Amino acid sequence: MSEKTRSERIEELIFGIRRADPEAMRLAEERQAKLAKPPGALGELERISVRLAGMTGKVKNSVEKRTLLVFAADNGVVSEGVSSAPQSVTLSQTVNLTRGLTGAATLARHFNTELRVIDVGVNAEVRAEAVIPRKIACGTANIRKGPAMSREQAEEALLVGAEEAEKAVLSGAEILGVGEMGIGNTTTSSAVIAVLTGKTPEEVTGKGGGITDEAYLTKLQVIRDAIRLNAPDRKDPLDVLRKVGGFDIAAMAGAFLGAAKMRVPAVVDGFISVAAALAAYRLCPAAKDYMIASHASYEIGYRAAVSELGLRPLFDLSMRLGEGSGCPLAFSMVSAATAVMNEMATFDEAGIDDGYLSEIREGDKFTVEKQK
Amino acid sequence: MSEKTRSERIEELIFGIRRADPEAMRLAEERQAKLAKPPGALGELERISVRLAGMTGKVKNSVEKRTLLVFAADNGVVSEGVSSAPQSVTLSQTVNLTRGLTGAATLARHFNTELRVIDVGVNAEVRAEAVIPRKIACGTANIRKGPAMSREQAEEALLVGAEEAEKAVLSGAEILGVGEMGIGNTTTSSAVIAVLTGKTPEEVTGKGGGITDEAYLTKLQVIRDAIRLNAPDRKDPLDVLRKVGGFDIAAMAGAFLGAAKMRVPAVVDGFISVAAALAAYRLCPAAKDYMIASHASYEIGYRAAVSELGLRPLFDLSMRLGEGSGCPLAFSMVSAATAVMNEMATFDEAGIDDGYLSEIREGDKFTVEKQK
Repeated sequence: MSEKTRSERIEELIFGIRRADPEAMRLAEERQAKLAKPPGALGELERISVRLAGMTGKVKNSVEKRTLLVFAADNGVVSEGVSSAPQSVTLSQTVNLTRGLTGAATLARHFNTELRVIDVGVNAEVRAEAVIPRKIACGTANIRKGPAMSREQAEEALLVGAEEAEKAVLSGAEILGVGEMGIGNTTTSSAVIAVLTGKTPEEVTGKGGGITDEAYLTKLQVIRDAIRLNAPDRKDPLDVLRKVGGFDIAAMAGAFLGAAKMRVPAVVDGFISVAAALAAYRLCPAAKDYMIASHASYEIGYRAAVSELGLRPLFDLSMRLGEGSGCPLAFSMVSAATAVMNEMATFDEAGIDDGYLSEIREGDKFTVEKQK
Repeated sequence: MSEKTRSERIEELIFGIRRADPEAMRLAEERQAKLAKPPGALGELERISVRLAGMTGKVKNSVEKRTLLVFAADNGVVSEGVSSAPQSVTLSQTVNLTRGLTGAATLARHFNTELRVIDVGVNAEVRAEAVIPRKIACGTANIRKGPAMSREQAEEALLVGAEEAEKAVLSGAEILGVGEMGIGNTTTSSAVIAVLTGKTPEEVTGKGGGITDEAYLTKLQVIRDAIRLNAPDRKDPLDVLRKVGGFDIAAMAGAFLGAAKMRVPAVVDGFISVAAALAAYRLCPAAKDYMIASHASYEIGYRAAVSELGLRPLFDLSMRLGEGSGCPLAFSMVSAATAVMNEMATFDEAGIDDGYLSEIREGDKFTVEKQK
């Protein structure tokens, strides 16, 4: 195993990913149709339960064992003044995540979610033992001056993300969330989404954590310059990640691939997460069958990416915190979908005539005019 | 107490409802501003936590003790062929709710929610002991032929709903959900919303549980006829409930008032629930401070009602089952809002300089250009 090259390992990862199982989905749809409710009345909960069947190959599923993977890394581009927070916040919030103090950590604890924080490139020595050490380098280079990283580093980050996803599943996780902590990563995400979708930076760039109008114009110019200078090849997602992405986004893309390989649902958090999901999809289209979008991000580039993935976010709470904070809430909703599939009675079990929605039962003691 | 007239008791109920506490909301906003995140980054979760403070008068709240109230009643208007299901389904699903077999019962169990099913007008003898017997009459009259009920019955239904809400709170509920089971009640809800908002039946009428195009035209005509014949006074919500509503909607309106009186949040389910919420709001504007909208209903009249209430639904899963099925999921999201307020660290606790979002700390080891 260790003698394989990185590209061989990536190829193996991608070839290990199968499309969702159509037969399991058909059986799941059959069961949904028998549940004691008007067809489709539970909307997205029904669709998710069918998608889960496609992912795992089983009609009844559980998502009670939940792991949120948070990939932390720094981005050289912060030296261009694109972010409202100093780079040191990456380090403090990475540590604070493991101490249970941040927004995502609070929500993870509240929704019974194991949190794994993985350092893939924080620009500092991380002394907290609870942070999983998989550092590729101390932050990326400034994408306005050159590529964020080398091809080898991009491959390594991708493989680390996939491995961490696989490890989480091997330790029992039935569903994964993919989040991040990295000051400056809305800039790199906008750049990645712009290149992968062919949209202009204006169409996919927002104000991130909350910058001034002036800083926003700087951010746009930085993204334009980075794309022009590095000329990433949009047909080669790894080239895009390497030139205008970051260690966080590359590792997250790997985590989506790893989850798909393990046939486990992976929840997309917000803007940075959807940039990674889009890169994973471009590397392996089948991977999107395992993705579930949590919330509609406030960032304008989110919509472009999520619609290309064909995903529909489960909720929109105007959240824009990152850290994977949308995932625990999404786990709860996906869990509701499993409850419907696993626990709701069928018409037979509920003692309701199967045909009650289109026809009146004969001999019914109430008089109701028959519908056409 | 028993000597008071119904109208006196209703007056007392309404005068017992106070607006949300502005001082508690101010303190809650103050605490939100100190939490270790960019201001507003948790969006609706922040706003809900502030609203909860206004309801209860406390900054930190719990919604772990949850009760879903489901009011079951039959509607005489089903004899006009407005519904795809026979009236007997009201009885079977009322019983099935208490047996844990329906969609809402499944979701309630899954989200740790006590379910109370209250018969306020099922057109049959309900033999299941678990159903709480508060029957006003065996179904309403057909609103195309005359008023649904007498003024006294409308008052009684309202008071029963309020009492059941108050009882649930006295037994420990920290949050209530308000749902229903009653074949034909999308027709009465459309009629109530049309009258209360002044919109045409076309603007607020959908296909309910799933009827044919032909039955839809019948339903529209029935609503038009019922409004013309009964001429409800839109300035008098009880008159509207009595003439074109139902026992379910009237009791649900009472439940919203009872929750508000007890200063406990009440979650609006879908279309029928929002019709009741709107009637409650018209009876007592302060009641809306205690309402939380769960999901955006598929029914077209929902939007008109919810926007008049100034509420924003938490999620949109294209659900249209009724039974209060949106409430358990909403409880979970409201609970996330309490977790953020109660458990997240402040900047001080997290070791992050309060000003980190607008200014760079002096002596920071990383160099970041200062933002304006």
